[in-house]
Amino acid sequence: MTTPLLPAALPHIQRLHAYTPGLQPTEPGWVKLNTNECPYAPSPRVIEAITRELADGAAALRLYPNPKALPLRRLIAAQNKLAEENVIIGNGSDDILNLLVRCFASATAATAYTFPSYSLYPVLIAIQDGKTAEVPFDRSMRLPVEQIAASTAPIFFLTSPNAPTGVAFTNAELETVLTRYRGLLVVDEAYAPFAKENATALLARFPNLVIVRTLSKAHALAGIRVGYALAAPAVIDLLDRVRDSYNVNRLSQAAAAAALSDTAYYAGIINKVKQTRDHYLGEWAGNFGWFTYDSQANFIFTEPKNARGETGPAVAKAAYDYLLSKKVLVRYFPAHALTAPFLRISVGNDDEMFAVHQHLAAWRQLA
Amino acid sequence: MTTPLLPAALPHIQRLHAYTPGLQPTEPGWVKLNTNECPYAPSPRVIEAITRELADGAAALRLYPNPKALPLRRLIAAQNKLAEENVIIGNGSDDILNLLVRCFASATAATAYTFPSYSLYPVLIAIQDGKTAEVPFDRSMRLPVEQIAASTAPIFFLTSPNAPTGVAFTNAELETVLTRYRGLLVVDEAYAPFAKENATALLARFPNLVIVRTLSKAHALAGIRVGYALAAPAVIDLLDRVRDSYNVNRLSQAAAAAALSDTAYYAGIINKVKQTRDHYLGEWAGNFGWFTYDSQANFIFTEPKNARGETGPAVAKAAYDYLLSKKVLVRYFPAHALTAPFLRISVGNDDEMFAVHQHLAAWRQLA
Repeated sequence: MTTPLLPAALPHIQRLHAYTPGLQPTEPGWVKLNTNECPYAPSPRVIEAITRELADGAAALRLYPNPKALPLRRLIAAQNKLAEENVIIGNGSDDILNLLVRCFASATAATAYTFPSYSLYPVLIAIQDGKTAEVPFDRSMRLPVEQIAASTAPIFFLTSPNAPTGVAFTNAELETVLTRYRGLLVVDEAYAPFAKENATALLARFPNLVIVRTLSKAHALAGIRVGYALAAPAVIDLLDRVRDSYNVNRLSQAAAAAALSDTAYYAGIINKVKQTRDHYLGEWAGNFGWFTYDSQANFIFTEPKNARGETGPAVAKAAYDYLLSKKVLVRYFPAHALTAPFLRISVGNDDEMFAVHQHLAAWRQLA
Repeated sequence: MTTPLLPAALPHIQRLHAYTPGLQPTEPGWVKLNTNECPYAPSPRVIEAITRELADGAAALRLYPNPKALPLRRLIAAQNKLAEENVIIGNGSDDILNLLVRCFASATAATAYTFPSYSLYPVLIAIQDGKTAEVPFDRSMRLPVEQIAASTAPIFFLTSPNAPTGVAFTNAELETVLTRYRGLLVVDEAYAPFAKENATALLARFPNLVIVRTLSKAHALAGIRVGYALAAPAVIDLLDRVRDSYNVNRLSQAAAAAALSDTAYYAGIINKVKQTRDHYLGEWAGNFGWFTYDSQANFIFTEPKNARGETGPAVAKAAYDYLLSKKVLVRYFPAHALTAPFLRISVGNDDEMFAVHQHLAAWRQLA
C-alpha cells in the first residue's frame, strides 16, 4: 500500500527550532550553576503540604485540580495587597509569558523586548508567528528608557533584574516608561526577590503594567512549575481566556501556597544567597579585577580575564570549557557581542561557590 | 495624571469566552459524577514515587524537571512497542491537543472535528483564530467515515470512545479513514482503557495517525495533569518545537511513571469500572427502558424518560435538577439537539452508583 504523506505544518512552525534550555545533567557529581536554581531546599512546609495531598491513599489525585487555583490566587493577592481578580497562576512563569504572547503578539504590530534578555521571548513570539522589535542594551546595560517609551509595540517584555546581566531597573525608571509608553509593559520579575525593590507598588497607578513572577528561583521550586502574574483585572481576564483550565496541578498548587506562606524561611535563604553573591562578586570584581555587573539577582555576570590580561569571547569560552572539565556547569551566551565575553554563574551554596572560585583562580593563572 | 489606556488584545481574543470546565465543588457531601474521574485511588506506587521526590528535605524540587521527560517517555514507548521519538508528554492531554492546534490550525484551511465530541477542540481552535469544520454525527452516533475520508482539513480531531456518548469506533473504521483521508487524524483515546480495542497497532502503518492519551481517567490521576501522544517522529518533532521545555513538573513525571508501571493494579480497577458501567447501563436501558448508548468509556449517556413516558431536553433538565437537589452532580449538554435529551453520568464507586440509581428511580416515579 502507499504511505500517506504527512500534511504540512504551518509555514512558521516548519521554520522553528525548539528552544534549548540550560543543560540538566541527570548523573551526579556536577556543580550545577547554570540555570539559576536555588542552592537550598524549599520550605519544610512544602513537604507537609504535598504529604497532605497524599492522604487517604492519594485519593485526592483522582480529582481535577481547582481550575482557578483559588486558594493560591487569594494568598498571592493578599500578600501583594491586591484582589484575586489581579492574579493569574501559570504552569511556570513561561506559561504566563506564552499567554501574553498569544493575546497580543501578531504578524502585523511588532512585539518588543529588550536585548539581551530572557531568550524565551523571541522563541514564544516565533511560535505565534509574531513580528519582533528588539530594543538593544549598550554595554552599560542601563534601561533604554526613551526607546521603550517611544515604542509603538502593543506589548513590551522587560526582565528586571535583567538576565543574564543581573542589572536591576528602578521603579523611578519604570514609572517614566509606564507614563509614556502606550502599550502593555510586562516586567518579568523572576529575580526580584534578590533585588532592592520590586514594581508591585506601581500596579495601583498603571493598568498597563503586568508583573510576572516565578517560584523557580527564590522559592527553590523550579521542579513544581508555578509562576504568576499581577495585573489589572481586564488583563487577567484576557489571559484567562487562553489559559488551560487545569494548567496547574494539585500538588504544585498546594506546594506553592505552602512555600509562599513561609516568608520567614525564604527571607533567610534569600539573605544568604545575596550575601554569597555579594562576597564572590567582590572577589571577582575586586581581587581578580574582572569587569562584573552589579547583580541584584541570584547569579553573577562576570568577564573573565586570562593570565595575559585578555578578555573576549575566546577567553570566556576557555574559562567555560575549563570549568566544564572540572564538572562545574555555568552558562555563556556566545550569540551576542555584549554577552559573549562573559560567564553567568548562578549563586550556589558555600561549597559550590568555593569550588567554582578555586577553579577560576587556577584557570586565570594557567590560561 | 491621566490613566494610560490598555492596548487592544488581538481581535479574536477580544471575542473569546473562557472555556467552562465541569463544576469542581470544593465543599464535601457531593456525589461527583460529572467529569469522568476515576472513583478509585491511584496505584500505591504513586505515593511511593512522590515521596521519593521529597527525600532530603525535598531538595530535588529546587531543580528544573527533566525537560524531555525522558524516563517517562521511554516507559510509554516500551509499553506501546514504539521508540522514544514516537512519544511526547503533555501537561494533561489538553496540552497536547493545544500543541497540535498551534502546529496545524489556521484561518485559511479549516481544522475539522466531529460534533458532538470533546468541547475543547473548538475552544482551542478559536484561541488560535482558526477556521473550523464540524462533521456532524447523526442520532446513531456511528462514525461518518465517508465524510472524514473526504475532508480537506489538514488535521481532524476525533474522540474514540466518543464523549459524551461513550460510543467507540473500531480499528477497521479508523483504517478506512486513515487510508483515504489526506490530513493528520488525531484520535483522542482519553477513554480507550475502558474500550475493547485501541488504535496503537495502526501507528506502524499510518504516519498520519496521532493517538492522544491521558492519565486523568483510567489512571485516577486527573490531579497531576499528565497526558501523552504517540505519533510518527516527524509529528512529535513539530509538537516539541511548540511545547514548553518544562511543561511537566517533577512530581507529575514521577507519579505518571509509577502509575503506568503498575499494570496489574489498573487492570483491576478498570475491570471494576467496566463491570459497574455494564450493570447500570443494563438497569437504565433495560429496567427503566431509557435509550442508552452502548458505552465503552467510564460514563453512561442515557436519555431519561419521565412518569408520563416523555423524553427531551426539558425532561433531561428536570432529571439533572432533581439529582442536583440531592447533591448528585452529573452533566448535561443543552447546546445541541442530539445531546440535550441526555444525561452523562460518570461511573462512580458502588455507593455512588447506588445513590444515583435510587434517586433516578425515585425521580421517574414522581416526575
